[in-house]
Amino acid sequence: MAKKSKSALKKKEGVSISEVTNASSIKSIKEKRKAAIDINTLVKALLKKDITALSRAITIIESKNPKHKAQAKSILNHCLPHANNSIRIGITGVPGVGKSTFIEAFGKHLTTIGKRIAVLAIDPSSTITKGSILGDKTRMEDLVKNENAFIRPSASGASLGGVARKTRETIILCEAAGFDVIIIETVGVGQSETTVHSMVDFFLLLKLAGAGDELQGIKRGIIEMADTIAINKADGDNLKKAKLAKVEFNRALHLYPEKSSNWQPKVTTCSALKNEGIDAIWDIILEYIETTSKNDFFNKKRNEQNKFWLIQTIEDQLKSDFFNTPKIKKALVNQLQLIENNKTTPFAAADYLLKLNN
Amino acid sequence: MAKKSKSALKKKEGVSISEVTNASSIKSIKEKRKAAIDINTLVKALLKKDITALSRAITIIESKNPKHKAQAKSILNHCLPHANNSIRIGITGVPGVGKSTFIEAFGKHLTTIGKRIAVLAIDPSSTITKGSILGDKTRMEDLVKNENAFIRPSASGASLGGVARKTRETIILCEAAGFDVIIIETVGVGQSETTVHSMVDFFLLLKLAGAGDELQGIKRGIIEMADTIAINKADGDNLKKAKLAKVEFNRALHLYPEKSSNWQPKVTTCSALKNEGIDAIWDIILEYIETTSKNDFFNKKRNEQNKFWLIQTIEDQLKSDFFNTPKIKKALVNQLQLIENNKTTPFAAADYLLKLNN
Repeated sequence: MAKKSKSALKKKEGVSISEVTNASSIKSIKEKRKAAIDINTLVKALLKKDITALSRAITIIESKNPKHKAQAKSILNHCLPHANNSIRIGITGVPGVGKSTFIEAFGKHLTTIGKRIAVLAIDPSSTITKGSILGDKTRMEDLVKNENAFIRPSASGASLGGVARKTRETIILCEAAGFDVIIIETVGVGQSETTVHSMVDFFLLLKLAGAGDELQGIKRGIIEMADTIAINKADGDNLKKAKLAKVEFNRALHLYPEKSSNWQPKVTTCSALKNEGIDAIWDIILEYIETTSKNDFFNKKRNEQNKFWLIQTIEDQLKSDFFNTPKIKKALVNQLQLIENNKTTPFAAADYLLKLNN
Repeated sequence: MAKKSKSALKKKEGVSISEVTNASSIKSIKEKRKAAIDINTLVKALLKKDITALSRAITIIESKNPKHKAQAKSILNHCLPHANNSIRIGITGVPGVGKSTFIEAFGKHLTTIGKRIAVLAIDPSSTITKGSILGDKTRMEDLVKNENAFIRPSASGASLGGVARKTRETIILCEAAGFDVIIIETVGVGQSETTVHSMVDFFLLLKLAGAGDELQGIKRGIIEMADTIAINKADGDNLKKAKLAKVEFNRALHLYPEKSSNWQPKVTTCSALKNEGIDAIWDIILEYIETTSKNDFFNKKRNEQNKFWLIQTIEDQLKSDFFNTPKIKKALVNQLQLIENNKTTPFAAADYLLKLNN
C-alpha cells in the first residue's frame, strides 16, 4: 500500500508538474498575446481619437511599474509616426493671475473655431503637496464637459526631469490622438517654466497690471522667454492700468536683444473673465507660427528641443549612476570630511572619486 | 681586422648603451631631485610671503603642460594646511561702474590699516578676446606699486569650469602666502558672477544711480546674490541721485525673502574717485563676518561651496568622458537623425546611448 501510494504520488506529481508547466506556458502565451492585442487595440482606438484609450495609454506611460515599460515603449513607437503635428503652447503666470479662467476662455475659443485641444500641466510641487494644479478639474467647468477638449492633471514624479519626460511623451500621445493644440500650464514659480519652455513652440506669459515683478514673483529669465505677454484682468477699474502696463512692457521688451526667431515679442491685454482679447491672442500665435515657419525657426526650435532633452536625459542618468554607486557613496563621505578638515581640495577629491569609479 | 672591428664595436656598443642608460637614469634622478627641491624651495619661499615664489607657483597651477600636474598637486598639498584663513570678497558690476577705481581705493584703505590683499579676476571672455580685465595692470597704478598688494590677471582656459578651478586653487596659494583679504573681480556679464559667488564669503555689487537694471545689464539673480550693494560715483551732481537710489534699493531688497545667513543685505553709497564711503564698506564686511561667524553660517557656506565644487567637477568630467567616447560620438549623430525623422524619442535615444556605453 505504501508502495502503491508512492507510485500514485509519483504519477500524480508527474502529471501535476506537467499540467502546471503546460498551464503556465499557455497562460504566459495567452497573457503575452492579450497584452499585445491590448496595446494594438488601445493604439488603434487612440488613433481614432478615442479619449478613453488616450487616458489609458497616458496612464501606462506614467506608470512606475517596470512591467509597463515595454508597453509604454510600444505605445510610443506606434504613436510617433502620427505625432509632431500640433501647436504646442506653454502658459505661465503666478497663482492669482487667472490661468485657469484664461485657459477655459482660450480653450472655448479654439473649440468654437473647430480645434481640438489638450491641456496638460507641469507641476513639480504636486509631488510634495500630493495635489495637482489641474487635479481639481472643477476649476475648468465648461472645458471639462467639452468633447473637443482633453484635460489631464500633472504627472507626478520624484524629479522635474521625470515629470518632464512623462509630459513630453504625453504630448506625443495627444498629437497621435489628433489634438491640434496642446496647452501646457505651469505653476509660475521656480524651475518649471524653463522646463515647459523647452517643450513648446510658443510661450505665453500672463501678468497683472500694477504689481511689480517682485510682487508677481516673476524672474527676469521668464520675461526673456515669453513670445507674448498678456496682461490679464484688463476689465473694469483695471482697464486703464492694464493699458499703461502694456505700453511699459512694450518699451521694456524692446530693450532686450532680438530673438533668433526674428519674432518681436508682443504685449497685449485681455480679460478672460469677460472673454475679451482672447481671440486676438490666438491670432498672435498664428502670426508667430507663420513667421517662424517661413524662416524655418519653427522646425529648428523643435530639433533643438529634442537635442536638449536627449542630452539632459543622458546627463541626469550619468550623475545618478555615479552618485548611487555604493563604493562612491561611501568614499564621498570620507572625501567631504577631508575637505572639511582642509586635508584636500574639492578638485583633488573629485579626481580621486572619478578614478575610484573606473 | 674585421673581427677586431666587430669586437670593438660590440664593446663600444656595450659601453655606449651602458653609458646612455646610466646617464639617462642619473639625469632622471637629478631632474626629479631638482624638481623636488624646487617645489620645496618654492613653497618655503611662498609661505614666507615671497611674491615671486607665489607668482611662479600660480603659473605652475595654471599650466596646461601635463608635466606640471604633479608639481601643482604637491604645491597645493603643501599650501592647504596654511590656507582658509582670509576673507574672500567677490566684486561685480557692469563695465563703466568703476570697478578698477573702486578696488584701487578699497585696496589702499585695507593696506593702510595693515592688511595684505590679493586681487584676482574671473573673466571667461578673456579666452575669446585674448585679453584680460586685469591684464592691463596700469588700470590700478597705485595698487600695483603697493608691496602689500598682489594683483594677478585672470587665468585663461577653455571653460568657465577650468578657469574657476584655477582661481579656486590660486586662492589657496594666496592664503598660504599670508594674504588677509582676497578680492575676486568679475566682469559683470553672463555666468561669471555665479561662479565668483560660489567661491567667496561676501559678494559686493557695484551699481550706478539712475540707470535701470536693464541698462546696467544686471540680472535679477545677481541682485539676489549681493550681500551689499554699493552705489558708486556718488559725488558731485550725482550725489542726490545716488542717495535716492539707495532708498529705492533698500526698499526693493526688503521684498526678497530673508537669507539663510540672517544677514539683511545693505545698500550704501560711495565715491571711489573721491575716496568717500570706502572705509564704511569695509566696516560692513567686518560686521557681516561677525554676524555669520556667530551663527556659524560663515563656515557652513565654505563647506557648501567646497561640496558644490566637488560635485560640479565630477559632473563636468562624467559628461565630458561620455560624450567624447568615439562610439558614442558616432552613435549620437545617428540617434539625432532618427529623432529628426520622428523615428525615435529623445528619451528612447538616451536609453540606447547609455546602454551602448556600458
